[in-house]
Amino acid sequence: MAHPDLHPVERALGYTFKQPQLLVQALTHRSFSTPHNERLEFLGDSVLNCAIAQQLYSHFPDLPEGVLSRLRSNLVRQQTLHEIATALALGEHLRLGDGEVKSGGRNRPSILADAVESLFGAILLDSNFDQAQLIIQQLYAKRIAAIDPATPAKDPKTLLQEALQSRHLPLPHYELINATGHAHEQIFSISCNIPALSILTTGTANSRRAAEQAAAQSAYEALSK
Amino acid sequence: MAHPDLHPVERALGYTFKQPQLLVQALTHRSFSTPHNERLEFLGDSVLNCAIAQQLYSHFPDLPEGVLSRLRSNLVRQQTLHEIATALALGEHLRLGDGEVKSGGRNRPSILADAVESLFGAILLDSNFDQAQLIIQQLYAKRIAAIDPATPAKDPKTLLQEALQSRHLPLPHYELINATGHAHEQIFSISCNIPALSILTTGTANSRRAAEQAAAQSAYEALSK
Repeated sequence: MAHPDLHPVERALGYTFKQPQLLVQALTHRSFSTPHNERLEFLGDSVLNCAIAQQLYSHFPDLPEGVLSRLRSNLVRQQTLHEIATALALGEHLRLGDGEVKSGGRNRPSILADAVESLFGAILLDSNFDQAQLIIQQLYAKRIAAIDPATPAKDPKTLLQEALQSRHLPLPHYELINATGHAHEQIFSISCNIPALSILTTGTANSRRAAEQAAAQSAYEALSK
Repeated sequence: MAHPDLHPVERALGYTFKQPQLLVQALTHRSFSTPHNERLEFLGDSVLNCAIAQQLYSHFPDLPEGVLSRLRSNLVRQQTLHEIATALALGEHLRLGDGEVKSGGRNRPSILADAVESLFGAILLDSNFDQAQLIIQQLYAKRIAAIDPATPAKDPKTLLQEALQSRHLPLPHYELINATGHAHEQIFSISCNIPALSILTTGTANSRRAAEQAAAQSAYEALSK
């Protein structure tokens, strides 16, 4: 089965590159050399978003757009990509500059997550969108199957509240800072303030509720970084 | 040439739907009836982002990720989609509830932009990704050809500054509100404050410069809404 020339990452992905230099580039951090993987990451991020959007759209025909969007955020965020990178054992195959290696770059979630996205971009260029989507589907199959549409994904306010409670910190403070526009097009800006962590974010949307959720989402991301 | 049964939007797009109900759904605002276009918009937004990412990637082989990302933001933002909707004369074909029609919904940029994205989602479902990408490429060909890589897209801070100057308003005030993490993974939060407009946004990134730009981007979006 196993082709002797196959790169371990190709074996883990279940995909053989026709242009192996694309695989090498996807695994090359900017601290190592050029060409590095930043442009591939840009491409791969959009491929991932689109592939997951399609998967969720067809898998959950009854869920509204807002829930699909939230489910997707969970699936494409750094933490999930980090888990996928770990399952693919990407860390040991990354090409990093000496400084990055010494400071633990092989285990850094942001570097690993970026490399996963870069791989998706590399597969797109090496083959086409459908092929990249297929690999993404395989990597995400169990995660998508595990989603129970009856218990929708937690919204950002809930996630933020739980994260703060687990750290024994007080709840965030939401405040309306601006509302502009006419009745049918009002835009609300709401701030989310967590003084204990010096986190202050703002969300802007066409409803107070959506603006609060957007502010909470930014705060949750700041907290998770 | 013109097929008598062709919907005017099909003629404008240069695409004939095999499943005309998808076209109807893409043109149906939630104020009219279900099935409306919100789920298609979710799908179409991701198709558009991915198609434009690929276009920019191949068209500008020497531009770094950050510039590609900024160029894409300009191409997929509401204002550009509104222009495309106008060129397609979408407004007159939208299916809107009575209240929306009376309050000028046919000319509302957000409704028109959402309908354009929905059309991309509908084409994806009716055919496949490559077909949707082809239509997007045709609609964007002149805009992408007009980009001069030697004069990069204006960054959000510059755009915001120009917008404020044109309104004779003072410049925004940027302030570092937080910096966390160790040397190699520091995260900065910077606020962008425009008291005259009650706009206060925050940007979070791994450099002060990127955090400022993120805060400026949010403020610019709040300003443009």
